Amino acid sequence: MAAYQAPLTDMHFVLHEVQRAAELCAAMPGTADVTADLMDAVLESAAQLASEVLAPLNRSGDEEGCRFEAGRVHTPAGFREAYRAYTEGGWVGLCGDPAHGGQGMPKMLAVLVEEMMMGANSSFALYPVLTAGASLALVSHASESIKAFYLPRLYSGEWSATMCLTEAHAGTDLGLLKTRAEPDGQGSYRITGSKIFITGGEHDLSDNIIHLVLARLPDAPAGPRGISLFLVPRQLPDASGKPGVHNGVSCGAIEHKMGIKASATCVMHFDGATGYLIGEANKGLACMFTMMNYERLSIGLQGIGLAEHSLQVASAYARERLQGRAATGPVNPAGSADPILVHPDVRRMLLTVRADLEAGRALSVYVGAALDTVHFDPDPQRQARAARLVALLTPVAKAAFSDRGFEGCVNAQQALGGHGYVREWGLEQNVRDARIAQIYEGTNGVQALDLAGRKVVRDQEGLLETLWEDIESFLQAQATNAALKECFLELKAALAQTRQVSDWLRQAAAGNPDEIGAASVPYLRLLSQLLYCFMWCRMAVAATLALSRPGADKAFYEDKLTVARFFMTRQMPVRHALAAEIKSGCATVMAFPAERF
Amino acid sequence: MAAYQAPLTDMHFVLHEVQRAAELCAAMPGTADVTADLMDAVLESAAQLASEVLAPLNRSGDEEGCRFEAGRVHTPAGFREAYRAYTEGGWVGLCGDPAHGGQGMPKMLAVLVEEMMMGANSSFALYPVLTAGASLALVSHASESIKAFYLPRLYSGEWSATMCLTEAHAGTDLGLLKTRAEPDGQGSYRITGSKIFITGGEHDLSDNIIHLVLARLPDAPAGPRGISLFLVPRQLPDASGKPGVHNGVSCGAIEHKMGIKASATCVMHFDGATGYLIGEANKGLACMFTMMNYERLSIGLQGIGLAEHSLQVASAYARERLQGRAATGPVNPAGSADPILVHPDVRRMLLTVRADLEAGRALSVYVGAALDTVHFDPDPQRQARAARLVALLTPVAKAAFSDRGFEGCVNAQQALGGHGYVREWGLEQNVRDARIAQIYEGTNGVQALDLAGRKVVRDQEGLLETLWEDIESFLQAQATNAALKECFLELKAALAQTRQVSDWLRQAAAGNPDEIGAASVPYLRLLSQLLYCFMWCRMAVAATLALSRPGADKAFYEDKLTVARFFMTRQMPVRHALAAEIKSGCATVMAFPAERF
Repeated sequence: MAAYQAPLTDMHFVLHEVQRAAELCAAMPGTADVTADLMDAVLESAAQLASEVLAPLNRSGDEEGCRFEAGRVHTPAGFREAYRAYTEGGWVGLCGDPAHGGQGMPKMLAVLVEEMMMGANSSFALYPVLTAGASLALVSHASESIKAFYLPRLYSGEWSATMCLTEAHAGTDLGLLKTRAEPDGQGSYRITGSKIFITGGEHDLSDNIIHLVLARLPDAPAGPRGISLFLVPRQLPDASGKPGVHNGVSCGAIEHKMGIKASATCVMHFDGATGYLIGEANKGLACMFTMMNYERLSIGLQGIGLAEHSLQVASAYARERLQGRAATGPVNPAGSADPILVHPDVRRMLLTVRADLEAGRALSVYVGAALDTVHFDPDPQRQARAARLVALLTPVAKAAFSDRGFEGCVNAQQALGGHGYVREWGLEQNVRDARIAQIYEGTNGVQALDLAGRKVVRDQEGLLETLWEDIESFLQAQATNAALKECFLELKAALAQTRQVSDWLRQAAAGNPDEIGAASVPYLRLLSQLLYCFMWCRMAVAATLALSRPGADKAFYEDKLTVARFFMTRQMPVRHALAAEIKSGCATVMAFPAERF
Repeated sequence: MAAYQAPLTDMHFVLHEVQRAAELCAAMPGTADVTADLMDAVLESAAQLASEVLAPLNRSGDEEGCRFEAGRVHTPAGFREAYRAYTEGGWVGLCGDPAHGGQGMPKMLAVLVEEMMMGANSSFALYPVLTAGASLALVSHASESIKAFYLPRLYSGEWSATMCLTEAHAGTDLGLLKTRAEPDGQGSYRITGSKIFITGGEHDLSDNIIHLVLARLPDAPAGPRGISLFLVPRQLPDASGKPGVHNGVSCGAIEHKMGIKASATCVMHFDGATGYLIGEANKGLACMFTMMNYERLSIGLQGIGLAEHSLQVASAYARERLQGRAATGPVNPAGSADPILVHPDVRRMLLTVRADLEAGRALSVYVGAALDTVHFDPDPQRQARAARLVALLTPVAKAAFSDRGFEGCVNAQQALGGHGYVREWGLEQNVRDARIAQIYEGTNGVQALDLAGRKVVRDQEGLLETLWEDIESFLQAQATNAALKECFLELKAALAQTRQVSDWLRQAAAGNPDEIGAASVPYLRLLSQLLYCFMWCRMAVAATLALSRPGADKAFYEDKLTVARFFMTRQMPVRHALAAEIKSGCATVMAFPAERF
């Protein structure tokens, strides 16, 4: 089985030639020292870690899984050593606050690093991704003393962190949660309750685990406006700052799951554990939302990374596996058969995976750049504009990356026939591992509802209009570019159609709020189709430009144009079906009687 | 977790009211005694076996898997007892030749029984399904003495059977296979070679295992026209007809797979094993093709059965799980939240699963009825006509049932959120088990190529035209039925579009044979869309008729009309995307250089 190799050339292309990251960094004070060379060095070093340290533990981690014994979780063989290598490289704090030991790198770079780690070993990658996410919540909402004490220990990986949201009866609907927080009269709180589905709730990788827990204060209003956020260490730090006495936090069980078996998914019990309020009382959900845009983007990257890994394996297999003959005559007449790449349907599957994941990668950098503008750009107007894009695009990115990532893993597996179904080639594991990204961090149905409801129908800030502007000014700038005219025509038509469907949805929802939910998933898919088309147009423009440079790697850039054309002709027609499905309305969805399901 | 329950009411509806099975049976001498009551008794008894004996072993079988020790395969706990119950019920020989102890039941009934067994426990069901398939090959091609000796033992389940086709280097391309068969001078042969992916190649359920093996005679021409079929018992029968000495057949290993873990997928070695030629020398592939239409249909049913099971679990969950509130106001104001069925997107997912699986079930009975006409109808014209339908529809049924079955299992899993990803609810197992049906018995890509190439472009018998006739005469008969006008308009439009695309494909392929493979998968999907639309129209007609009967279960029949409308408005628009994708041609698929994949 081919091990994961980071697609560095493709990543350089997207980061430098499509997104022009170095120019963006140079223009912002917080990232002025992030040069192209520095970014390449980061990518190079991440690639080495991913392929040499994480990838070799991917299958063994799946086979062995996590072990739960007497309240402790043991990660699979090799994970502790890999965690040490990962943390010693400073990767947990890659985007961390430099004031507290973070490296302050831009998100548009970090998305590529995260894609690599997820592609090489999703189970492993989740431990530090969760720590990075929790750290971000602390950066925005914790007191200076908490930040000064905890952040350096989290960025170094010495301690790790979790997010404790879900309870057995409260998943999507966090307003139902029951975990209680009672003031202990000393400025801290006693936290009591049980949480489920806690990624990395307990494990043996770090010296301490810091839980960010959503809970209710005694006088809190019911529902989502009565939830506060608490920091609850597994072991309370002692006077020297080392993990001290245990704090009434225990792991009751780990889940047995379809995939990501080396990631510990824990049932966590808090029995009067000491916790510290983070941010304002009753504003816990808002504190969580701050980091959610980052976190959702990271989870989407799991889909892209695993699809990339699966594509690498399936492409190598298809180049070598001899079976059947080309319809147009043998290409390998001396051999017993031709490589299966002669079969158009094998190509169709692999090109579909490639077209989706490369556009997804470009979009992840695009959204990453918008997050960086929000964070680093001193200009309030540019900041506000980027914030609108982030709000609009985050749910689309999370759902589209993970949906297409899963589909990509399934397609790549299919190219191997029976060999894709057995464990040996690793592609069945990728399918199982990729599946979770469609579910956690808000199911893709929840992402679609957030998009169609909050971001489209109830939007007052012009989120969609900001995106339309971006696409229109791109088209404007390319008005005289005749070489790619067909791609631009498709983009223009897709834009017009998506605008029209969006208007329809806003009007229809005014008459019946169920139109939002009935349209949401196909609407998200339609908008993602437009965005992927936009990304392929941007990549085609960058490739055309590069081809005019002497000494350019012609084959590489021509491949981009070939896949762009494939995407336009083979994958874009689905927008007509999606538009028709949406506009058929909610009547047929709501008609079936609930008790007859 | 809800256990599988056979959907008997839906099955009765499809069999009796949509397909009018009893009338068809009464009109053919071989099935004249198969009354509606008899069929219902068969279904009832199969349902009991599926839900009471097979379903309880589904999850434990997955957890335990098969164990390989010293050349022997041990099936999971309870499988031997279940196999005894299954075989004592005579289920292996349900469609078997009555001259040799089979029950001679029609396939249109058997598809429903197979769907139940697959839905309750796919791993288990594969053992007898393989025996039934091998028996069918013997019925058509073996000598009278072989039939008389082996068939009763296979129908009773005392012995089981396998199909040994694939070799490590010869999967889809069986022409490459190398297993040798040398005459031993006594009328039999010495078989030598290794086979992989042999379902039930070794296990502890039956007293003997009879392998049907494809191999080459010494003087055989190269390629697919030099392959012969041999019967190779694991143990040679002794004088009393009992399993005697071992016959140079051994199991080298079992595969570790994504799913169907309780089904033993074996590497089989034949070391000069004694085998008996079945059918003519060098006509082995043709002998296999006889049974392939039955076998492929059975494998498709795995998708329908598992989607049905998943839908049952997800529907029960969605009725009970309280989370969030209806967009139009609370429906459960006294409770903490509303059942998630109030959310349009949950309904959309579950209705999609339902619409696909009910149309699939109706199509399975339709194809089953065509197989029965070929087998039982004495009229050569009706026989020939039905044979054309079978040839056309088998690859569509296998691929569409298994593709939509997998998608259905994924959608149902999604409705449970995180609870769908953990093992507890069983839905992640269904996803893993359903995945194989898209791969084995000819991958769905191979089915699509068979359809687009052999059955459409190179067809000389008017296969498509036979289907068009069926649909047109249905539409003709309903010309004055105004109540379902919208459904019929959609069917008419889909028919016109599919015909037009078929004509396009035939012409395009004349210019470039790669057009076949480039179009094949979306073409199969398009044709299946037309067929599912046809099935929903037939079901709607039957439901309307039933609603006019006094005392009819109004709710049941109205549900059919509701789902039919859902299918027409929400699922049919995809045909436009498929048509556009196909007609974009093969250029963008073939342009990417092979060495750059």
